[in-house]
Amino acid sequence: MRKISADFNEWAARLRQRIERVLDDLLPSASLVPSRLHDAMRYAVLDGGKRVRPLLAFAAGEATGADPAQVARMAAVVELVHAYSLVHDDLPSMDDDALRRGKPTCHIAYDEATALLVGDSLHSLAFQVLAETAVASPEERLEMVGMLAKAVGSRGMAGGQAIDLESVGQSLNLPELELMHIHKTGALICAAVRLGAGCGRGLTEERRDRLDHYAKCVGLAFQVVDDVLDAEASTATLGKTAGKDAARHKPTYVSVLGVDSAQDMAGELYRDALGALAGFGGEAERLRDLAGFIVQRRF
Amino acid sequence: MRKISADFNEWAARLRQRIERVLDDLLPSASLVPSRLHDAMRYAVLDGGKRVRPLLAFAAGEATGADPAQVARMAAVVELVHAYSLVHDDLPSMDDDALRRGKPTCHIAYDEATALLVGDSLHSLAFQVLAETAVASPEERLEMVGMLAKAVGSRGMAGGQAIDLESVGQSLNLPELELMHIHKTGALICAAVRLGAGCGRGLTEERRDRLDHYAKCVGLAFQVVDDVLDAEASTATLGKTAGKDAARHKPTYVSVLGVDSAQDMAGELYRDALGALAGFGGEAERLRDLAGFIVQRRF
Repeated sequence: MRKISADFNEWAARLRQRIERVLDDLLPSASLVPSRLHDAMRYAVLDGGKRVRPLLAFAAGEATGADPAQVARMAAVVELVHAYSLVHDDLPSMDDDALRRGKPTCHIAYDEATALLVGDSLHSLAFQVLAETAVASPEERLEMVGMLAKAVGSRGMAGGQAIDLESVGQSLNLPELELMHIHKTGALICAAVRLGAGCGRGLTEERRDRLDHYAKCVGLAFQVVDDVLDAEASTATLGKTAGKDAARHKPTYVSVLGVDSAQDMAGELYRDALGALAGFGGEAERLRDLAGFIVQRRF
Repeated sequence: MRKISADFNEWAARLRQRIERVLDDLLPSASLVPSRLHDAMRYAVLDGGKRVRPLLAFAAGEATGADPAQVARMAAVVELVHAYSLVHDDLPSMDDDALRRGKPTCHIAYDEATALLVGDSLHSLAFQVLAETAVASPEERLEMVGMLAKAVGSRGMAGGQAIDLESVGQSLNLPELELMHIHKTGALICAAVRLGAGCGRGLTEERRDRLDHYAKCVGLAFQVVDDVLDAEASTATLGKTAGKDAARHKPTYVSVLGVDSAQDMAGELYRDALGALAGFGGEAERLRDLAGFIVQRRF
C-alpha cells in the first residue's frame, strides 16, 4: 500500500480548520430568531467529525487547479447536507441513536421536533449556499444544483436510507448491499468530488469519469471500513455507538463477507481508486492520500 | 367585496388537473427502487389539496405573460415543497396529526421513518426540478434557487414552524403571531408568486415589489381564514382535524382577536392585496380572483 504523504495530517488539519470557519460563517447566528433552531443547527454541524467529504472536495479542487476559497464553500455545502442526514438518521424513528461525534445526538441535546427542523433547515441552506456561490458559469452551477439534488434525493442518499431500513432483519447478498451503499453514502461522496472538481477549469469528460470512478471506489471503501470498525472497535474510539448494526440485525460487509474478506475488499477498492487516478500527476496527490486515509483509519 | 370571475372555478379545476399531471410525471414511479419510498412520495403529493400555491404561481405567470408550460413546472416545485412540509409537520414529534386532505397522514399510511424520508426526498426533488427547468436566464434561475432555499429554510418556512412549536401554551401578541405566519406560510406563498412571475418577461422592480406585497397579504389572509375555519368548521368539511389549535393551546388569530375581528382582518388583508395590484390590468385578474377565493373559501 502506497504511503500517505508525510504532510497529509497537517494538510487535513489545516483544511478542517478552514471548513470550520466557513461553516461557522454560513450558519445563522444563534442570536437570530428562531434562536433555539439556529443554536441546534450550529450544534449539529460545528466542532465535529472527520470532515471526510469536505476534504474530498478540497482534494478534488486541487486536482483541477480550483480556487480554494470557492472550493471551501462547495465543501461546506456537502458538509451541511451530510450533517442534515446524520441528524435525521439518528432520530428515534430511524436509527434511534443517542451518540454522534462523541456528543449527544441533536434530538437528545434538544428535542425531536427541533432535530427534524434542523435537518430540514440544513438541507435548504446547502442549496442556498450553492446557488449563491459565484463558482463556474451559471449554467454549470445550475448543473451542480441538479446533480446535488439528485444525489441526496430518493434515487440517492435518502433512497439508500430507505433501502437500509427495509433491509433490517433481511439477508442481503453482496450486489444488494453494494446498491444500498452506492445510494446511501456513495452518492454524496461523488457529489463532494464533483463539486470540488467543478470549481476548477478544463475538466475533460474522461477525467471527470475517472474522478467519478475514484469517488465510487472511495465511497464503498469508506463503508466497508465503517462496517469493520463498527464490528471491532469500541464506542469510545468511534465517538458513536459501536456494534449497533449487528445488534439490529442489519446486513453489513462484515456480516456478509466476514472481517477478513471485508478487509481484503477495502484493499481492492483502494487499489481501484488509485487506478482511476492514472493519468493524473501530482495534482491528484491529496486524492491518493485521502483514499489511503479512508482505508487505514481507526475511527 | 369584488365578485370572483364567473369562470374562476373552471380555470382552477383545469389547472389543478394540469398540476396533477405534471406532478405525476415528475415523481419517480413506484416501480423504481426504493419502491415503498416512491409509493409514499406519490401518496403524499398526488390527488389532494386545494393546490392554492400552484394556482398562485399560475396566476402570477398570467400576470407576466409567462409560458404556462414553464409555470406548470414552477408550480410543481412549490407544491413539492409544500407537500414535504405537510408530511414533516404531521409527524408525531411535530403536530402529531392522523388526517390530512381527507386521508390518513403519510406516517399513518406508511410509517414514521418512511414519512421522514418522503419529506426529505420531496425537498430535494423540488430543487432538482427547479434546476432542470429551462426557464428565464441561468442567472435568474440561480436566483430562484437561492430565493426558494431561503424561503423554506430556518429564516423562512422551517423557522416559522420552530416559532410555532415554541409558541404552544404561550400567549402571543398580534405582531408575534404575524411574524410566525410570515415565516411559516407566507414565505412559501411569496415564493410561489415569484417563481410564477419569474417565468414571464420584463417584470419591473416596482411590479415585483407589488406582487411581493400582494403575496404577503394573501399569505396572511390565508392563515387568518385557516384559523377561523379551524375554530368553526368540522373535521369532515376540512379534511383535516378541526379544533386542534385550541385543543393544543396554540395561539391563533381567533384566540388573539376573536372570530369577528379575525374576519375583519381577513377582509382588510384582501383589500390590501387588491390594492397592491393597482396598475396591473386584466392580466392580474386571476390573482384578484384567488385573493377572493382564499378569503371566501369554506374549506
